[in-house]
Amino acid sequence: MYANTPNPPYYAVIFSSIQTIDIKGYNETAGRMLELAARQPGFLGVESARETLGITVSYWKDLESIKSWKENSEHIIAQEKGKQQWYSSFKTRIALVERDYEMM
Amino acid sequence: MYANTPNPPYYAVIFSSIQTIDIKGYNETAGRMLELAARQPGFLGVESARETLGITVSYWKDLESIKSWKENSEHIIAQEKGKQQWYSSFKTRIALVERDYEMM
Repeated sequence: MYANTPNPPYYAVIFSSIQTIDIKGYNETAGRMLELAARQPGFLGVESARETLGITVSYWKDLESIKSWKENSEHIIAQEKGKQQWYSSFKTRIALVERDYEMM
Repeated sequence: MYANTPNPPYYAVIFSSIQTIDIKGYNETAGRMLELAARQPGFLGVESARETLGITVSYWKDLESIKSWKENSEHIIAQEKGKQQWYSSFKTRIALVERDYEMM
């Protein structure tokens, strides 16, 4: 449930989105992207939740691993579908995690 | 719904949590904290969503504004209630947003 991230520093990609009403095919593609992302070098984990706004935070070793994932060919197709069909809006923020603490 | 953040750099506090079954008083306090946070110097906005896992990302001008908010006396009491009663676990990550892009 929680991403099991290592000690900082590492990167977070904070993806906030609002879906359209036409989410046909979304769940299958989201599941497939999770599977693919998990196999990418530098992938550290992901956390997500959705009410009206959805927030998905994926964690990565460095900027290079984020770039490689963004340029993955199957992921590019999914990103296009997202822009055309599934999301009415989104915002992506790329952030360097400097510190973390927890109660587990 | 989206936090209306300025151009990077700025900071994100990514707070992931799982609640207990005893969330009496949670909503009132969460609403009050939002109200208080919004009045803090350096507060830039907040986004949140909860399924089983809840993710709240608050955005701040700099580390000093995050520190001041963490040390706000009313907020300290709320944090204690969170640890004792409302959250079974949580993880907080403090991250420097270096880049963002959007489709709005």
